[in-house]
Amino acid sequence: MRFKETMYEIASNIKNIADKIPENDIKNFIELIYKARKIFIYGAGRSGFIGRSFAQRLMHLGFDSVFIGDSITPQFTASDLLIIISGSGETTTPVAIAKKSKELKGTLILITSKPQSTIGKISDLIIDIKSKSKADISGDTKILAPYTSLFDITTLSFFDSIARVIMDDRNITEYDIDKRHATLE
Amino acid sequence: MRFKETMYEIASNIKNIADKIPENDIKNFIELIYKARKIFIYGAGRSGFIGRSFAQRLMHLGFDSVFIGDSITPQFTASDLLIIISGSGETTTPVAIAKKSKELKGTLILITSKPQSTIGKISDLIIDIKSKSKADISGDTKILAPYTSLFDITTLSFFDSIARVIMDDRNITEYDIDKRHATLE
Amino acid sequence: MRFKETMYEIASNIKNIADKIPENDIKNFIELIYKARKIFIYGAGRSGFIGRSFAQRLMHLGFDSVFIGDSITPQFTASDLLIIISGSGETTTPVAIAKKSKELKGTLILITSKPQSTIGKISDLIIDIKSKSKADISGDTKILAPYTSLFDITTLSFFDSIARVIMDDRNITEYDIDKRHATLE
Amino acid sequence: MRFKETMYEIASNIKNIADKIPENDIKNFIELIYKARKIFIYGAGRSGFIGRSFAQRLMHLGFDSVFIGDSITPQFTASDLLIIISGSGETTTPVAIAKKSKELKGTLILITSKPQSTIGKISDLIIDIKSKSKADISGDTKILAPYTSLFDITTLSFFDSIARVIMDDRNITEYDIDKRHATLE
Repeated sequence: MRFKETMYEIASNIKNIADKIPENDIKNFIELIYKARKIFIYGAGRSGFIGRSFAQRLMHLGFDSVFIGDSITPQFTASDLLIIISGSGETTTPVAIAKKSKELKGTLILITSKPQSTIGKISDLIIDIKSKSKADISGDTKILAPYTSLFDITTLSFFDSIARVIMDDRNITEYDIDKRHATLE
Repeated sequence: MRFKETMYEIASNIKNIADKIPENDIKNFIELIYKARKIFIYGAGRSGFIGRSFAQRLMHLGFDSVFIGDSITPQFTASDLLIIISGSGETTTPVAIAKKSKELKGTLILITSKPQSTIGKISDLIIDIKSKSKADISGDTKILAPYTSLFDITTLSFFDSIARVIMDDRNITEYDIDKRHATLE
Repeated sequence: MRFKETMYEIASNIKNIADKIPENDIKNFIELIYKARKIFIYGAGRSGFIGRSFAQRLMHLGFDSVFIGDSITPQFTASDLLIIISGSGETTTPVAIAKKSKELKGTLILITSKPQSTIGKISDLIIDIKSKSKADISGDTKILAPYTSLFDITTLSFFDSIARVIMDDRNITEYDIDKRHATLE
Repeated sequence: MRFKETMYEIASNIKNIADKIPENDIKNFIELIYKARKIFIYGAGRSGFIGRSFAQRLMHLGFDSVFIGDSITPQFTASDLLIIISGSGETTTPVAIAKKSKELKGTLILITSKPQSTIGKISDLIIDIKSKSKADISGDTKILAPYTSLFDITTLSFFDSIARVIMDDRNITEYDIDKRHATLE
């Protein structure tokens, strides 16, 4: 039973990516969040569920965030930031949303494992998660975590670690988060 | 900037929980998935997003899974399994859903960090993720990952590692997953 | 083929309910919306989809609205309004959410066809849509619109007609709505 | 207070569209549903909530339906049907999804008020709801129902009236629906 091996592999991947992401990318990522009027987040499938988790965390930290497709999706403007999560950078609706965001003159960040992708080419900032994602599915993989799992889990870890940096930077406490967290759910 | 420290902390927590979860719990968890007619998954907020990710992964593996609240939520019967994700085991709608599932004589698994909780008391199996969750928010925490992040990420890692065990057990390949994965999204 | 008959039946039901809802209920409904800090909306299944449509319309009109369960669900307080849509007034999660909202001392409106229901008994205002809903399923129905359709469609019509009254009252134009409507979706 | 006038206007519009939709379109619509392996439904914003309501109703009637974006979105194939709801036929993600569905050689139905639109041009069948939708927003409208309300509500009425025709055709009763309806929600 390779349960523990898979858990260990996931943990290793998170540490590995932690070492690889340039500090400058993290600073730029946070800077764009600070500058945005509103922060829109989008992704399809599991990338979307990871994105929703970060949208909620940003709200906890006091930002005006939204996941595209939720009931309350306001107007996107040139003052807004769009963060797209797409391992391949080629998924149908994320590509369409990304292109439209540039027509509307907003800022675009891509979280991906394929910086050279269609979305990558039009992004203002790319965070390269460098983990097996949908674009890397093959028969002879030695990776245990199924399908896009390494990309998904590492991306969620990236987002929550960014949240810690913001908490430190702005003196946001656990209590502040708790006061914004849903009480009726 | 404590970005890397937070990533490392998350990774450590995943390894720590990998060591702590009894092998028997994993076997029982998978056994209940195999026995179920349909697998219903539920959680509120971020636990719900983690749950949706696992519901999708189970579909990829060939199971008849659903997240409660999606457009297509079929009837729950005594032959079905409900998996609830709730760090505190006390969240309003998960508690209501859990109680109702027992009235309907289905099987209930709780993924939690509080086995002694209201949902824990009526569950057929509890997976104790033993990570800081909403019930542990306090001012003097030394944990870097914000709020429920350790619980959320470790739970997602648990689910995807369970998926690996099922893949091995049933000879499911990456290609099998790819054939079931959405192409229109 | 009874397509046209069903469409006509739906239209008749909307007119019938328009005649039956007391003007005072409409005034009170709008008054509670005006007084609320935030407006939370909830319903299960199709009632939830109708509720999400109204949550979005309220945002278009300039209110701070949210559908419970969306990524960005803020904290519910005693200054907030909860609008629940439940034909039977007995559905599991709406009952749990309703009870919790009263513990948190917020205001509760129920849109229903069963004012004497569990949620009805604890509501501050009830809008009685008086249409066939889940509680009225029976073998000898002469109603053509399937299952809860009359309740669902009449409730959506009620919400959008309320929106017209608010637009008139506050001089909100179609252009104002258009400026708040999503451009990235 | 123009509450009742708006309700009456909505009712009139439903009757008006009931008279205008060619019987042949209804027959073709139902035929394509019968022939499909799976029925995928998509729409953005409120069109999406109407679409989810129909996806659920189709499940109630025994069809294998899904709303694109739900946790369980299976693979779309040439044997599948995609129904898109888009008043303008030009919304970003519906256009992208529609084009992709044709690449994948599936069947495409558009529910719209603009048959000459981008999606209309590639659709196998168009149901023209001919009601004010997003493409018709203007300052001098005399229509009371706000923004896209007439299109949204008439489309939902269309879907539920189609459901009646299918129930008659296949001898599906209210009890059959009730047996498939969610019990845990």
